[in-house]
Amino acid sequence: MAEELTITRQSIRSILNPGRMLSDGIPYGDYGEALERVETLSEWFDFWAEKGNAYETLGDAAIAAGNGVSGGEWLWHAALSFHYAQFMWFHDPSKREEGHRRKVELYNRAAPHLVPRGERVEIPFAGAVIPGFLRLPAGDPPDAGWPCAVLLGGLESTKEESLRFEELCLRRGLATFAFDGPGQGELFFDVKLQPDFERYTSAVLDELETRGELDNGRFGVLGRSLGGFYALRSAAYDDRLRACVAWGFFYDMSDYESMPDVTRRGFAYVTGLEGEDAVAYLRESLRLEDAADRLHTPSLLLNGVHDRIFPPRQMELVREAVAGAPAFVVVEPDGDHCCHNMGQIVRPRMADWLANAL
Amino acid sequence: MAEELTITRQSIRSILNPGRMLSDGIPYGDYGEALERVETLSEWFDFWAEKGNAYETLGDAAIAAGNGVSGGEWLWHAALSFHYAQFMWFHDPSKREEGHRRKVELYNRAAPHLVPRGERVEIPFAGAVIPGFLRLPAGDPPDAGWPCAVLLGGLESTKEESLRFEELCLRRGLATFAFDGPGQGELFFDVKLQPDFERYTSAVLDELETRGELDNGRFGVLGRSLGGFYALRSAAYDDRLRACVAWGFFYDMSDYESMPDVTRRGFAYVTGLEGEDAVAYLRESLRLEDAADRLHTPSLLLNGVHDRIFPPRQMELVREAVAGAPAFVVVEPDGDHCCHNMGQIVRPRMADWLANAL
Repeated sequence: MAEELTITRQSIRSILNPGRMLSDGIPYGDYGEALERVETLSEWFDFWAEKGNAYETLGDAAIAAGNGVSGGEWLWHAALSFHYAQFMWFHDPSKREEGHRRKVELYNRAAPHLVPRGERVEIPFAGAVIPGFLRLPAGDPPDAGWPCAVLLGGLESTKEESLRFEELCLRRGLATFAFDGPGQGELFFDVKLQPDFERYTSAVLDELETRGELDNGRFGVLGRSLGGFYALRSAAYDDRLRACVAWGFFYDMSDYESMPDVTRRGFAYVTGLEGEDAVAYLRESLRLEDAADRLHTPSLLLNGVHDRIFPPRQMELVREAVAGAPAFVVVEPDGDHCCHNMGQIVRPRMADWLANAL
Repeated sequence: MAEELTITRQSIRSILNPGRMLSDGIPYGDYGEALERVETLSEWFDFWAEKGNAYETLGDAAIAAGNGVSGGEWLWHAALSFHYAQFMWFHDPSKREEGHRRKVELYNRAAPHLVPRGERVEIPFAGAVIPGFLRLPAGDPPDAGWPCAVLLGGLESTKEESLRFEELCLRRGLATFAFDGPGQGELFFDVKLQPDFERYTSAVLDELETRGELDNGRFGVLGRSLGGFYALRSAAYDDRLRACVAWGFFYDMSDYESMPDVTRRGFAYVTGLEGEDAVAYLRESLRLEDAADRLHTPSLLLNGVHDRIFPPRQMELVREAVAGAPAFVVVEPDGDHCCHNMGQIVRPRMADWLANAL
């Protein structure tokens, strides 16, 4: 039987990150209901799965009735509900996988109905298939094609979670391509966390370069949380990336022991290893030093001083390491992890920066 | 000196309607901060004014830097903050007017930068000027022009507050025109609540018919709260309206005495009268009977059974009165006033209904 965590209401509240969840699209009513009704971690999964099933019913009915816009939005709500059902569910891998598969399947069905639509793209690479979604801004493209922001998830954030941020990019004339890399989302089942995530970003760029709708001279990358670290590595190792945003970042795993318990579980989980083996692999694999040395890409690094996952010491290590690069480090004095608590301020700012840099 | 209301934290919470405020665009962080910091009604105004000023600073800086999309969004956040600063501020008219003027001025500056842009339109009528904003969907219009949803605010909701709902319409290929009628928003200062709001809707249609971008055969109306009542009256009295959504509705003022105190103050305020005169005028002016008798427009009437402002008895009176019309009455068993607590479900549904009916 799966390990059952005894978790207090206080801990549930610490998982219920309203800034992140609401900025990403969870409706306030659902968040408020979870705050009232969910007492234990075991109730958590089923609460969100129930929401996901309800939105799926709404979405399917809307599509059947010819209301594709609502259908796409509700299936996306369903996918997001399943995302949050499983996102911290590291103690029970089979249930996590079940929730994850539901999220993927629901988002796949939502994507063609989104405005603008999401096109699923599958890129064979290194014995596996990198899955991603391409979205193009409304209207006619520039003659050279659209500039494109490549979006990276983090430890448990995946390509299905970035829709709201994609909209910020799309309104600013940037196409978006969000994908799952090693250890992330769908790809996790085939490829665990790797020390060279940047190879996967480069494989994605190889594919995007073949797309006539995009301007091959104007690719940028934005990564969130652990994805911020991946974005910096990707920009350092692939000159085709002309701009980089690290939305949350760290230097190495030397502060691993001080991370919240559920975060450490998550990091271990995505390695596919157990106990000390996982920790040793993480310490060896997640180091920015080599990438910082070779970073020449204009980069915006943003985080909040109240981050309890990647503490200020880590931000300072990165700041020193990239001192020679054209990198702008912004640490918001009121911000938490990824400044999710002030999304309405930092998210448009990052999208502007990326649009201007490209 | 203005009357100072003694109001408890409990009452502040009852003003802090999260479903409405968050669905309309107030960021969760601001809402959460208000919940923590605002103890009394007198602090309420200044809290939101401070937020509004901060967003104005962000918006102006973004526009100056050439980041118009963010500039428009932040100025809209500023306008919305001032909207909520003053929306229940009936006890101190000069401060309410100050907040309102700020809202209007900020939204006027936001509008050209919105995506798609809002065009301010001023329509001279009956000795005053009806102000409104026209927005057109992205892309090329149909040959006959865009169908258009005319959006009506309610007791204290105004044309600046409907942006999120406009986006739902715009994504479904409906243009939107939101305006302030008698007793509402800007027009309140010149024209108080009238028994024949529908004349103002018709004046708006006269103007919209001159716009080449719109399809004159495909106008609809949607009104919210008190605006739901106005929408039904407008549809009953102007055949150019081919579809009607009453998002919240009531039959008459026979349940006035049971309304929350602040709502009664609001109703009295928009009449421009005092005490019993105001109540008598409201009872005389706000009656649906004549309109219900002549309603032939396909109409969707939606509200929640937990509405404490327009109680279920009022919904039943309307249901009986429109029994002969092609009207669909939906009373959600889990919904509150206007079902704001389930916006992610009812708002797309109303937008779909309107798009399909047109």
